[in-house]
Amino acid sequence: MAFKSLTPGAMLCPVPAVMVSCASEKDRPNIITIAWAGTVCSQPPMVSVTVRKERFSHHILMDSGEFVVNLVGEGQLRAMDYCGVKSGRDEDKFAACGLTQTKVAELQYAPAIAECPLYLACKTEQVLELGSHDLFLGRIVGMGVQEELLDANGRIDLQKAKLVAYSHGVYQSLGPALGFFGYSVAAPEVLERRMKELNK
Amino acid sequence: MAFKSLTPGAMLCPVPAVMVSCASEKDRPNIITIAWAGTVCSQPPMVSVTVRKERFSHHILMDSGEFVVNLVGEGQLRAMDYCGVKSGRDEDKFAACGLTQTKVAELQYAPAIAECPLYLACKTEQVLELGSHDLFLGRIVGMGVQEELLDANGRIDLQKAKLVAYSHGVYQSLGPALGFFGYSVAAPEVLERRMKELNK
Repeated sequence: MAFKSLTPGAMLCPVPAVMVSCASEKDRPNIITIAWAGTVCSQPPMVSVTVRKERFSHHILMDSGEFVVNLVGEGQLRAMDYCGVKSGRDEDKFAACGLTQTKVAELQYAPAIAECPLYLACKTEQVLELGSHDLFLGRIVGMGVQEELLDANGRIDLQKAKLVAYSHGVYQSLGPALGFFGYSVAAPEVLERRMKELNK
Repeated sequence: MAFKSLTPGAMLCPVPAVMVSCASEKDRPNIITIAWAGTVCSQPPMVSVTVRKERFSHHILMDSGEFVVNLVGEGQLRAMDYCGVKSGRDEDKFAACGLTQTKVAELQYAPAIAECPLYLACKTEQVLELGSHDLFLGRIVGMGVQEELLDANGRIDLQKAKLVAYSHGVYQSLGPALGFFGYSVAAPEVLERRMKELNK
């Protein structure tokens, strides 16, 4: 094994690929696909999304100060890809993709996407200009999960959501569970029980 | 399908799970596992990593102004989990995990991890205090890829790296390719050819 030095690039992988929905007083609801997104704080819960200034949704995010991050399962993958290559300048992406708007109680304009497994309703706290992209830091003020993803104890079972990851231009399904946080130091009986639960 | 409203949490999924290596004039090299990481800019290429102030590596990052993001394949998963639950205060994690330090030309202190598929050498441009976590914005100034991950044309084939994703407490392998950026509008022959290549 030996490293070859290459020109630096944005090669953090895998990253989430999500549909960000937005709207403003002046603009109808739109969807923008974002892979340059991340969790940035646990308490308060916050996410970051990055958007090029020339993207149609940029001014909607700036005007409204809010957005919704919609997680994407395999069933929404084609729509997500489409929303990443088409512009809201030219068409209504909700209509084009057959997606449904859902009112989010905590926000004024931006709807969630009814078909997605989980949404994070965000209020923008800060915008940083970094270069090609502006970084929007959003505080998560509301969250909705499809009821069918909750188990008998009310816990979220995200395995059922069949989420998609994005890695160097390719959308990939999530495969078998390989471990859980802390598994490397778990007692053997805990390890066995939890791994069975995860891959049942 | 109907959403149930839940208390907001950091539920963006899947996210990358990476080993961040760091060192300073005063501190030996350490590894901290980070799932709250993301790409934040393409030009210049930049990543964000978030670290709690009470974590041992926090002061190393502050002192040195640099860090290395090491992508993690299935072969490094156990070590990554271990580095996420143990502290560099108590032990030398490189030694404990049998990992090897590799000098990174662009940085002064922080080594890369020789066993990982790809590293991003970063210089910290800005630190934002958000709450539980501080956000480190790093400019990627160097990048190394295992030679065996380069194809005949010198392109990075990350499918070979068997990267791991992190989703709500669970490490998951990446499964089959479901599509590629733009696949929803690709010509039928392009779609067929590329999907075959991706899942060969």
